[in-house]
Amino acid sequence: MTLIFRQAITKLNALACLTTGALCLSTGAQPEEKPNIIFFLIDDMGLMDTSVPFITDEAGQPKIYPLNQYYHTPAMEMLASRGHRFETFYANSVCSPSRISIMTGQSSARHRSTQWINQDERNAGPDGWRWDGIAADQVTLPKVLRQNGYRTIHIGKGHYGPLNSPAADPKFIGFDINIGGCSIGSPASYSGKDNYRSGIYHVPHLEAYHGTDTHLTDALTIEACKQIDKSIADGKPFFLQLAHYALHAPFQPDPRFADKYSDEADPLMPAYASLVEGMDKSLGDLISHLEDKGLGENTILFFLGDNGSDAPYHGRKSNVSQKIGSSAPLRGKKGTHYDGGMRVPFIASWVTPTASSALQKKWPLAQNQITSKEHGFASIEDLFPTTLELAGCDAPAGHPLDGSSMLGVLATANSASMRNEFLMHFPHAHRSSYFTVFRQGPWKIIYHYNKPADQAYELFNLLDDPTEAHNLARSQPERLKHMAASMQLALNQAGAQYMKDKPILP
Amino acid sequence: MTLIFRQAITKLNALACLTTGALCLSTGAQPEEKPNIIFFLIDDMGLMDTSVPFITDEAGQPKIYPLNQYYHTPAMEMLASRGHRFETFYANSVCSPSRISIMTGQSSARHRSTQWINQDERNAGPDGWRWDGIAADQVTLPKVLRQNGYRTIHIGKGHYGPLNSPAADPKFIGFDINIGGCSIGSPASYSGKDNYRSGIYHVPHLEAYHGTDTHLTDALTIEACKQIDKSIADGKPFFLQLAHYALHAPFQPDPRFADKYSDEADPLMPAYASLVEGMDKSLGDLISHLEDKGLGENTILFFLGDNGSDAPYHGRKSNVSQKIGSSAPLRGKKGTHYDGGMRVPFIASWVTPTASSALQKKWPLAQNQITSKEHGFASIEDLFPTTLELAGCDAPAGHPLDGSSMLGVLATANSASMRNEFLMHFPHAHRSSYFTVFRQGPWKIIYHYNKPADQAYELFNLLDDPTEAHNLARSQPERLKHMAASMQLALNQAGAQYMKDKPILP
Repeated sequence: MTLIFRQAITKLNALACLTTGALCLSTGAQPEEKPNIIFFLIDDMGLMDTSVPFITDEAGQPKIYPLNQYYHTPAMEMLASRGHRFETFYANSVCSPSRISIMTGQSSARHRSTQWINQDERNAGPDGWRWDGIAADQVTLPKVLRQNGYRTIHIGKGHYGPLNSPAADPKFIGFDINIGGCSIGSPASYSGKDNYRSGIYHVPHLEAYHGTDTHLTDALTIEACKQIDKSIADGKPFFLQLAHYALHAPFQPDPRFADKYSDEADPLMPAYASLVEGMDKSLGDLISHLEDKGLGENTILFFLGDNGSDAPYHGRKSNVSQKIGSSAPLRGKKGTHYDGGMRVPFIASWVTPTASSALQKKWPLAQNQITSKEHGFASIEDLFPTTLELAGCDAPAGHPLDGSSMLGVLATANSASMRNEFLMHFPHAHRSSYFTVFRQGPWKIIYHYNKPADQAYELFNLLDDPTEAHNLARSQPERLKHMAASMQLALNQAGAQYMKDKPILP
Repeated sequence: MTLIFRQAITKLNALACLTTGALCLSTGAQPEEKPNIIFFLIDDMGLMDTSVPFITDEAGQPKIYPLNQYYHTPAMEMLASRGHRFETFYANSVCSPSRISIMTGQSSARHRSTQWINQDERNAGPDGWRWDGIAADQVTLPKVLRQNGYRTIHIGKGHYGPLNSPAADPKFIGFDINIGGCSIGSPASYSGKDNYRSGIYHVPHLEAYHGTDTHLTDALTIEACKQIDKSIADGKPFFLQLAHYALHAPFQPDPRFADKYSDEADPLMPAYASLVEGMDKSLGDLISHLEDKGLGENTILFFLGDNGSDAPYHGRKSNVSQKIGSSAPLRGKKGTHYDGGMRVPFIASWVTPTASSALQKKWPLAQNQITSKEHGFASIEDLFPTTLELAGCDAPAGHPLDGSSMLGVLATANSASMRNEFLMHFPHAHRSSYFTVFRQGPWKIIYHYNKPADQAYELFNLLDDPTEAHNLARSQPERLKHMAASMQLALNQAGAQYMKDKPILP
């Protein structure tokens, strides 16, 4: 027990370090090497779009589901064996809110870009919602890292601001380098033959690949590797966000892998699975490049998706949870308020685990480890403080963070969770419309602003009922009251905004 | 169960109303009358400085302790019989942070006036702490109420900014009227014969009482009643904060009541008890005046203290909890991190409960009701949203609130709590120095930034151990880890600031 007590202290120490700064200094006389940090961010990638199992059985061991058997992601399997993944890692159910949470460490209710950013016009929402994305005065992760000696590189999908707005260019939000990022959220075409475009929706900066058969995912990977090489030449640590446009629609087959897959019931699934495998090849290529350059020991990689799956899979089995589709056995998909819309794969790993590495001794990550649902969860807002701790720099004064560093939890097997709350506020119309989701411990409450009173609430215990099959809102009224009150307080604390014409129930 | 379910919906409706605004409109054709709202705020008044029992027994019934038997507060007894009080109502353990939380609805970690404001100089603290009090651009309750048709009146102690700073005058923070408020936190003398002053520390605006035997508490009450009359003449609803300098030191006997009390062991106690009774007389006089003017039905009063007791009582009995003093049986007093330093009396009541009152039908308050510790707690941050709901106005967009409206809970007997967290962050030196306290459900964790590792944490279960006698930090390591992580997340969410030279443990 004494040992665990010490771990608790160490963890709080580590967590607090990012805000106090004072003890983040190296104790040695030499300035300490800083790790390279990579966010490998996959658009629309849900928890089940991989052969790596993230859902555990009753013993807390990973369990293979049919979708895991359908996809082939060997590089992810390798990464999972080297690192530490979470069964439950929350994002928003749509992309821009999640991406801006990753950049700011704040919940979407707080940063106020609560809906996806429409590149062409102001998407509908409450009066003050940030439809125009990240503002000049917002604190962002690349700004802070750049100030602390990092070369900051963005490759791929941006989607931080609409067309012709400042935030359309990732350089505006703190990246030294931007290749491929602009206002669009999807590529129109993944094919170099199409110049990665259709009409005005084109991926910029990739003219060298136009007319070739280079897949967009591959082109971005090549550019990422080039930027890594430039960072070596510059002698600076780098922060690389490789944000693939894949797996977003259009579901064009990737000719390198499409022939491996078939699906009679869902004819788009083979194309989708080929996009998945192309993404996985990118991961493998990136890791190989880092190892070739001798950077594996000093580079930490965070693999994650930005919202639940949009896989064109409608289920081929008769039972209900399978029929739900994209994220089976989870309920729901991208855009919905169920866990299938909000849970994403998350793996943290040193690229090359090495026992003798000073950096890895300082921040150990448990290998081949999964933190199962019984041990809690993490979320996109935790990336900002985690990264600041790795970079050895302070959080900006007065910048509220809706997350905590994960490094304490990632160090050991089945540690207690570092958080027990997650909030997603969505005062907009989409696949699911006008809702707030609040998770606290095992409980999840969903409030629907535009439904009649007797259907306005859903309440689930996700440990007893991970597929959200049993709405307990009526049978557990005291728990519902408690959760509704806690949700309201969390909304108040974030300064949440509401639609005037979609208020709370009458 | 259906009934309770409906209550939950009604409560969330009521809570959300303050942020959406849309459904706060009256359903009738006529604009609805707004209630008058009074904060009766007593300086340094702890939970036990009254004959009204706030602590309950195992059956949830109020239990009389020796301190309740020592004091005489008949007006408070009357108010308690008319209204709804909380056994557990949290404030900060020092005054300015609490007062600014009441004005802003934000925790002190968020508004950043984390220490009492030294009127003469910058009090020590982290770089960016708001030692100069409320800034021009801060959202405050009286500003919002004034914009919504209220006459806003401050009588008594201000202490919102240091000498010669803008916030030294309560008018700067949104009050139309200020009588008696300035930079000082204590009156130097309560006697009109002394002109309520000693040297430069004098209470302003009370020249009419100089040289008389009018006690300061009485003078402020007379002025409050005059302002109520002016509000009637103006035809506007009023928000009155009657913020007594009492019970703050100096502990001068109030000659009207001093002879009633004796205490050989603690010779200052009779003087202190006379200040208490003088404060109570003020409450009675104010209620009488409101009733004489026919305002009792439409006026809601919130009685509260701003931090734990500073009573000069050291205990005369041999058991430990009694020896602790001022707040016995609670542990600790003003300035400390124990509940005796952080819990204050709170009573919410319509001045004259009237079944036929339209306003009281809209916002019923349970009478002669105590919400016991088993049913949760509330805090100073809840006053802002509660008051906005009563005033029928929105919370300002983008202003985070660390509280929720209490009206749903106050309406019924032993309702579920509306909150299960409270944070007090104190990166300063005082009676207790450099600590953070975080309450979540029954658990309370205290972290000491400047103590050795084996003494840095305290952990209590306040339902099992309301006197904080048994530190469980070592015996419950998993709970400690969970609470430490939740505390760190709450600090991150508030954007808390830390002393560079008093960081977290090495």
